[in-house]
Amino acid sequence: MSRSMKTCFQTFYTLSVVRSKMVLQTFKNNRYKVLGVLISGGLYSYVADRKVYATGQNLKDLRAGWMTDSITDIKTLDEKSDDMRYRMEMMILRIQGDVCRALEHLEGEQKFLIDRWERKEGGGGISCVLQDGKVFEKAGVNISVVHGKLPPGAIQQMKSRGKKNLDGKDLPFFAAGVSSVIHPRNPHVPTLHFNYRYFEVESSDGSKQWWFGGGTDLTPYYLVEEDVKHFHSTLKSACDKHGKDLYTKYKKWCDDYFYIKHRGESRGVGGIFFDDVEDPSQEEAFRFVRSCAESVLPSYAPIVRKHKSDTYGNAEREWQLLRRGRYVEFNLIYDRGTKFGLYTPGARYESILMSLPLTARWEYCHKPSKGSKEDQLMEVLKSPRDWV
Amino acid sequence: MSRSMKTCFQTFYTLSVVRSKMVLQTFKNNRYKVLGVLISGGLYSYVADRKVYATGQNLKDLRAGWMTDSITDIKTLDEKSDDMRYRMEMMILRIQGDVCRALEHLEGEQKFLIDRWERKEGGGGISCVLQDGKVFEKAGVNISVVHGKLPPGAIQQMKSRGKKNLDGKDLPFFAAGVSSVIHPRNPHVPTLHFNYRYFEVESSDGSKQWWFGGGTDLTPYYLVEEDVKHFHSTLKSACDKHGKDLYTKYKKWCDDYFYIKHRGESRGVGGIFFDDVEDPSQEEAFRFVRSCAESVLPSYAPIVRKHKSDTYGNAEREWQLLRRGRYVEFNLIYDRGTKFGLYTPGARYESILMSLPLTARWEYCHKPSKGSKEDQLMEVLKSPRDWV
Repeated sequence: MSRSMKTCFQTFYTLSVVRSKMVLQTFKNNRYKVLGVLISGGLYSYVADRKVYATGQNLKDLRAGWMTDSITDIKTLDEKSDDMRYRMEMMILRIQGDVCRALEHLEGEQKFLIDRWERKEGGGGISCVLQDGKVFEKAGVNISVVHGKLPPGAIQQMKSRGKKNLDGKDLPFFAAGVSSVIHPRNPHVPTLHFNYRYFEVESSDGSKQWWFGGGTDLTPYYLVEEDVKHFHSTLKSACDKHGKDLYTKYKKWCDDYFYIKHRGESRGVGGIFFDDVEDPSQEEAFRFVRSCAESVLPSYAPIVRKHKSDTYGNAEREWQLLRRGRYVEFNLIYDRGTKFGLYTPGARYESILMSLPLTARWEYCHKPSKGSKEDQLMEVLKSPRDWV
Repeated sequence: MSRSMKTCFQTFYTLSVVRSKMVLQTFKNNRYKVLGVLISGGLYSYVADRKVYATGQNLKDLRAGWMTDSITDIKTLDEKSDDMRYRMEMMILRIQGDVCRALEHLEGEQKFLIDRWERKEGGGGISCVLQDGKVFEKAGVNISVVHGKLPPGAIQQMKSRGKKNLDGKDLPFFAAGVSSVIHPRNPHVPTLHFNYRYFEVESSDGSKQWWFGGGTDLTPYYLVEEDVKHFHSTLKSACDKHGKDLYTKYKKWCDDYFYIKHRGESRGVGGIFFDDVEDPSQEEAFRFVRSCAESVLPSYAPIVRKHKSDTYGNAEREWQLLRRGRYVEFNLIYDRGTKFGLYTPGARYESILMSLPLTARWEYCHKPSKGSKEDQLMEVLKSPRDWV
């Protein structure tokens, strides 16, 4: 294929993914350009729709579920759909779409704003944000697919146990992941965080290392035991399909990780958390991560539905804001993901810090009164329990 | 002196420093104990008042200016008043008292709560907090005098440039300092931070190293150039008494230090900041630090007085809370003092995190509109200016 044809083809693919909504909005202002987009989009669909994916869907069906165009150009995604980098990208595009639509449904009228960004060092991301909603005070569902070279500072943060030869120089890397924090308005609805990611790093000896990481965890402001049980059982079912001991191992890892050391308390009631997953095979590890990512909505949506209209007063709201202060403390002081993000050159801090709540509060020496509902939560945060 | 006499003497000193207010409050409930305290206090005063300090005051006068009893027992303070450890403690006790009383005066009715704490590993502190006031939303003026052994993690954070032989093992240390953050309610009144400290560490080769550090810096929400000029000139005058180049050097250090790297903006309009001060002599270094600490009130109080009754609306309040979010980011991600604190075993996190505002806010991709007052502040935060 000649160079100009290649360029033409690329433009073709790029144009074809403009969302129909945007197309309609701008149609009146710019009808000729838009007509070109519609024609090229149609042509591409004709080509792409002939391939049927493992899920039984063709690319057109899959794309309909995404919030917007993929990060990698659609042609590469399509052609290299066996490469884990692109499988992961397609999986996180789907999860982002599913979660955003489910949250929009729970929210009512307000929709997610879609924010695409590019990283000049390589790759980019899609941030979906719903802010100041009726049900969700701040909800972000981000995906990013980035590559390039990593400086030692960032490597230090991403360095998972057991990875070798990741020494003090810039190393080629690839990372694709979905990351989300959902802060509801009602203090009776817990905050949710999940993150699933795939890494590749080229070691100093030239060999490639890859691994998966991720987790889902819940941060309630008031303890409703049956909700926490539902949450944990859903995650357990997802894990159990892939190994008997996985849930127990990753539940403990989660408790250990989301721990606010200086306060001697957990951030929330945990969930699952893992890193360095590479066994028994890349295929199996991917399937496990996919199961976990797919369990996010069934674990959380019923809890939101149940409590989003609960009544509450000023005292509950204040307590929620104080706990959100603790959330900020954990994320900015301890979270490896946040640090990894902020140390990566060209990282988009707005996407990384989207995990922070709309509002947080710090009161000097605040202590809930003995036996209060707030104190009951604190007891669980001070000594994590088994829920299933 | 026999052992029992010594104990008796110590009790004597300890009892003598109970504040007269507290004494009066509890008098009715507990008259015999209180009578004992009054008698021993009186006896002590008789002894102590005969010594006249360099300031021309006797110990009784000095103590009247403190918020409460000293951290080190008064007998040691008195007897070893030439040792820098105790000179520094007496200086920070005085600064704490002066600042708290001046702020109480600006506030109106609400007073500082005084919170003493002990560190089981050695030493302790006095936290003075005024929360949810009319003028001050959250103001904290802490002093601490701590000693013991420092683990490598904390040494890493306190390690100032040029200090040698502070390698990876627990080392004996001493630290005395005053640290304060004042968050006013009115968005037209800036936030103030200051911190003056004295350190001693015993190196791995057995030699003792000491140095002073500190600084005062201002974080306005709206830029009033003449206020910033007043603030900087006051600090400059304090510096100029001790060396011609000090202000320029420490002003730049301040701009470099209070920089939120991931956002590419400063925390505020700076001030002065320094570490490793040990020249030309311990005496001169102490006098310089004392001048700086004494310049805190004249640099800040007039600005509070001028703006504490300015009118403001919701928009100004929201902007203030967003900027407070940035304050939290700096303190939790970059501040060496916060990290040093949180990594020191037995550290009192409530005192360390008292620097955090009562309320903070994070909005996704917030940008003030071009040319607005908020944008004018951002311009200065993006490129620090010279003010004097």
